[in-house]
Amino acid sequence: MSVTAPQGFRAAGVAAGLKTSGDPDVALVVNDGPDDAAAAVFTTNRFPAAPVLWSKQVLSNGRLRAVVLNSGGANACTGPEGFADTHATAEHVATTLGLGAIDVAVCSTGLIGVRLPMEQLTAGVTDAAAQLSAEGGPAAARGIMTTDSVPKTTVQPGEGWTVGGMAKGAGMLAPSLATMLVVLTTDAVVPGDVLQAALRHATAHSFERVDSDGCLSTNDTVLVLANGASGVTPTAEELGAALDAACLDLAMQLLADAEGSTKDIAITVRGAASVEDALEAGRACARNNLLKTALFGNDPNWGRVLAAIGTTDAAFEADRVDVTINGVTVCRGGSIGDDRDGVDLSGRAVTIDVDLAAGGAEATIWTNDLSIAYVHENSAYST
Amino acid sequence: MSVTAPQGFRAAGVAAGLKTSGDPDVALVVNDGPDDAAAAVFTTNRFPAAPVLWSKQVLSNGRLRAVVLNSGGANACTGPEGFADTHATAEHVATTLGLGAIDVAVCSTGLIGVRLPMEQLTAGVTDAAAQLSAEGGPAAARGIMTTDSVPKTTVQPGEGWTVGGMAKGAGMLAPSLATMLVVLTTDAVVPGDVLQAALRHATAHSFERVDSDGCLSTNDTVLVLANGASGVTPTAEELGAALDAACLDLAMQLLADAEGSTKDIAITVRGAASVEDALEAGRACARNNLLKTALFGNDPNWGRVLAAIGTTDAAFEADRVDVTINGVTVCRGGSIGDDRDGVDLSGRAVTIDVDLAAGGAEATIWTNDLSIAYVHENSAYST
Repeated sequence: MSVTAPQGFRAAGVAAGLKTSGDPDVALVVNDGPDDAAAAVFTTNRFPAAPVLWSKQVLSNGRLRAVVLNSGGANACTGPEGFADTHATAEHVATTLGLGAIDVAVCSTGLIGVRLPMEQLTAGVTDAAAQLSAEGGPAAARGIMTTDSVPKTTVQPGEGWTVGGMAKGAGMLAPSLATMLVVLTTDAVVPGDVLQAALRHATAHSFERVDSDGCLSTNDTVLVLANGASGVTPTAEELGAALDAACLDLAMQLLADAEGSTKDIAITVRGAASVEDALEAGRACARNNLLKTALFGNDPNWGRVLAAIGTTDAAFEADRVDVTINGVTVCRGGSIGDDRDGVDLSGRAVTIDVDLAAGGAEATIWTNDLSIAYVHENSAYST
Repeated sequence: MSVTAPQGFRAAGVAAGLKTSGDPDVALVVNDGPDDAAAAVFTTNRFPAAPVLWSKQVLSNGRLRAVVLNSGGANACTGPEGFADTHATAEHVATTLGLGAIDVAVCSTGLIGVRLPMEQLTAGVTDAAAQLSAEGGPAAARGIMTTDSVPKTTVQPGEGWTVGGMAKGAGMLAPSLATMLVVLTTDAVVPGDVLQAALRHATAHSFERVDSDGCLSTNDTVLVLANGASGVTPTAEELGAALDAACLDLAMQLLADAEGSTKDIAITVRGAASVEDALEAGRACARNNLLKTALFGNDPNWGRVLAAIGTTDAAFEADRVDVTINGVTVCRGGSIGDDRDGVDLSGRAVTIDVDLAAGGAEATIWTNDLSIAYVHENSAYST
């Protein structure tokens, strides 16, 4: 049921003709209240797209009644004209639904540096508004897909309240958010500060630890809307656990659907002096093209794990580091360990465990392999 | 003539059977004096290979009489046993040539985490020593090739003195040196401190600005030997210019031969507040897989240039940045510029000029595209 699993939300997804394929490309999510608490996390890219600039302004008061999303165009690097397009989209949603533009967040995804076809988009919004329903969550999730092969949704039930969500993203996944749009909804009663803190924690431990190709998008946005329709006020811990679970569920769906990937790789760095060290070492592996191509080739090339970690500032002694790939400790004390021929890489799931032997902290970074299909898909994307 | 272009150097390259292909895999370079000044730059990877650890010790006195190099095995991450292998190799060279082991640097390249077949290597060294000649430079250059498709050599003539050099490396190219071994020779009279400073400058402006795939090797070594055989003492500026030219020549040969590449890409960042900013922005582009796949697909996807630069800390305002690809300013003021259809990407050479409009500094980073052949070559490398 996606974003409409909690009470008091309606959604829709329609095909407005932004995509030449004729697939759905406009989605609308509306919060019918009674509350309108909202929180957000945005890309840290210094070329934020027009919808990011707009939504940041809108979210500054911590309130939101509607979210309009489009695929088929990112509206990024489009200058003042692009910002005016986003503003006009929000105004049109507001007029259609009887809200203020300040109540409407905008999200866009697709090619950078191209203006949106506003006539089609506006007509699509009108169409979507007419189709809004409490069963519209799945349609909305389809409306935000780009190169995704499947829609991504989640539902996390609480005691008398629910968290729902949808996500898009299938490449350009990187720390501080994947190229992805995520809308989460809940009918729990949640104060704004609790909502923002819970969302920060949930994204930091899910989307921000997925590093598919190291490329940080201009459009990443994660929104959460809380309307209190259930009348139930969960504890901060209960809400946090539900948001954590929803974000992790969606992040793993993004990973599984990453463009052209053949492996889901979990890199766990343990024995680190700090979580920051563990994350740095994990990310260095996740971004090492030689390691990622080796895994695509089913090659347990542990030397490339060490070479990647050797570029970091994490605390470790080179002769104390162990590397275990799918259960086989192929590297012990920075040198040759068990027989690498014992490593079975035939499946999609790969686990790389690195023990830095430098402390008690650990963290996991998730990534994909670097495949021929990845190169093909991304070299042909805009042509 | 490679490393034997200057007077007073002999070299050889032989096939010792380290490579299953039967290609040459052992090289020897000998300095016959009268001087034995030497300087070096090594990888900063924190898992330095055994030959790097050995050669660092040997170079601590700034003197060198011989260099032995092998392909077919990196002797990296091989523990104390690997270090003993390197030591034994140096001892064998020393005994064979009537030198001390302290006079002999060792360089290795190939797969990480595999012991060297010492019997074959030792026999190869004996063989190479017997073949040493003042015409042996080209053979030595062939003996250090791994996935290189051509040997790389350079000769830079001075006034009565000469700089010669050879290099190997065709992938895993990254800042602070590519996976590469470089030996430079000169018959100029050069004090040790002048030699070290000149080498630092030359590598910083050549090899360290080539960032083919962002992967830093465990074995990178650049050595320079100066024997004074010409009797001519160039000024520091003259020597520096010759070393700069030699290193840049070899760096461009490495770039042109990078594994599976179809483009040589020069990313020049100008209008930067500092050279460091220019380098950071250039490197962010060079490491952006989405940009590199786009260029493989002949797609002038300038949005990916901005998205890459947007992840840096370089000083700039988003609405003042211009991007010019092969002469067409496709992005002006952070937004849509001239028609991207005017960009001709059919050739191998690609220039990306970024103007940050934030100062007067500039720098160029060289990289390659990310191609299907790169993935294929690196996924199949050890299997």
